[in-house]
Amino acid sequence: MINVVLLGGGNVGVNLAKTLSNTKGVRLLQWYNRSSTVFQNIKTTGQTTTQLNAIVEADIYLICVSDTALTEVSSGLEQKKGLVAHTAGSVALDVLKTHDNFGVFYPLQTFSKQKEVDFSTIPLCLEANTEQNLALLTKLANAIGGPLHYIDSTQRKALHIAAVFVNNFTNHLYTIGAELCEEHQLPFSILQPLIAETADKIKTLPPRSAQTGPAARNDNGIIADHLQQLSKLQHQKLYQLISTSIQQQNE
Amino acid sequence: MINVVLLGGGNVGVNLAKTLSNTKGVRLLQWYNRSSTVFQNIKTTGQTTTQLNAIVEADIYLICVSDTALTEVSSGLEQKKGLVAHTAGSVALDVLKTHDNFGVFYPLQTFSKQKEVDFSTIPLCLEANTEQNLALLTKLANAIGGPLHYIDSTQRKALHIAAVFVNNFTNHLYTIGAELCEEHQLPFSILQPLIAETADKIKTLPPRSAQTGPAARNDNGIIADHLQQLSKLQHQKLYQLISTSIQQQNE
Repeated sequence: MINVVLLGGGNVGVNLAKTLSNTKGVRLLQWYNRSSTVFQNIKTTGQTTTQLNAIVEADIYLICVSDTALTEVSSGLEQKKGLVAHTAGSVALDVLKTHDNFGVFYPLQTFSKQKEVDFSTIPLCLEANTEQNLALLTKLANAIGGPLHYIDSTQRKALHIAAVFVNNFTNHLYTIGAELCEEHQLPFSILQPLIAETADKIKTLPPRSAQTGPAARNDNGIIADHLQQLSKLQHQKLYQLISTSIQQQNE
Repeated sequence: MINVVLLGGGNVGVNLAKTLSNTKGVRLLQWYNRSSTVFQNIKTTGQTTTQLNAIVEADIYLICVSDTALTEVSSGLEQKKGLVAHTAGSVALDVLKTHDNFGVFYPLQTFSKQKEVDFSTIPLCLEANTEQNLALLTKLANAIGGPLHYIDSTQRKALHIAAVFVNNFTNHLYTIGAELCEEHQLPFSILQPLIAETADKIKTLPPRSAQTGPAARNDNGIIADHLQQLSKLQHQKLYQLISTSIQQQNE
């Protein structure tokens, strides 16, 4: 049985609290958050607390707070013997080096409070200061069930940037698609099968091979026509730059 | 029974040839393509031809050739009494006005020869010169089974631009994700659950509400750090412009 204390009630924290409460071989002993609002309406095992000085002893402390709050929460755990791990993509392992046992447990997924995700499909990226600590994080990851990757801090940062491109930036392109639909009295749902197929295709085809469209076939007539049709300058700029980037790639 | 002649052997043509061969209430009479190579290895009903002057009589002529070849193929059908329809997103209905009966049958999806798609999920965008012709295209669309939309030429052009954003441009962001993975000896598969969830989330959450990441929360420290980490100038430019666009949207 791995005893876990979870720290943080953001999107990652809420999703981990639910998952750890239902994971065999794991006991969620305690869930800390600065404010207690988040604890309402979420059913978890173990106690909850808003006091950093009330944290109990555990095998693993999983910190899921914002990068800026990380140092403060980490300091609050200085007397603990257990393994202190953060869950951030862009933060190096080293920031936890004031502890004896420390590591990183980075779930590579986008989390929101409104939509529950299936943790058994989420890649878990692990790093730790010793082999023994890495083994403990591996045990936790195996209990949760997601695909497991040993990733150092430099790789994790690159991965986080890649995640910004394929998740945050892609979602922004979806927003622009929705805006263009609204502008022409079209329902956004009309684009959803295309969005689903675009995401599905790269499971079997490398994205470079899956590239189609006016830029990929150097159809400068259509590109010029599209640029003229776009009413927002920001959309024009994005259309132009991404098209150029696709064309350069094909050179 | 709707008798159809299909013209074109590109990605759309190949996928329609397979689908029409298996659609109840539709008979694929003939499939035309300039070269016969495409006919090999694809099992369809009806005859095949490479001769535009050998086209038989039919209820509907579906043209799936490139925008540039459209005029030539359309001219070859000038003596036909049936309904001549093109399948292009960016071409207005009017280009077919030399015919008595004409329309547009635009399937809003990304097609590749390597991956078969399920036509029953694909939005079919219809337009025609008369109510009667629109009814005939509606009958064909209903036989195939996809969600049906009546879309005029202006809307269809906007839709095509939206499709470029959510499909072509999104796929380019996937390519950049793959490049960043390669650069750091990481398998691209590690990003796939994130890509799938990003596409899935907007089925229940409007993309504007689903927006997360450094730009959405104005985390300029992380943005500056990411820009510094990116080794390719083109990646930096895209990161910068899309981040700015996300920030402007939140203002």
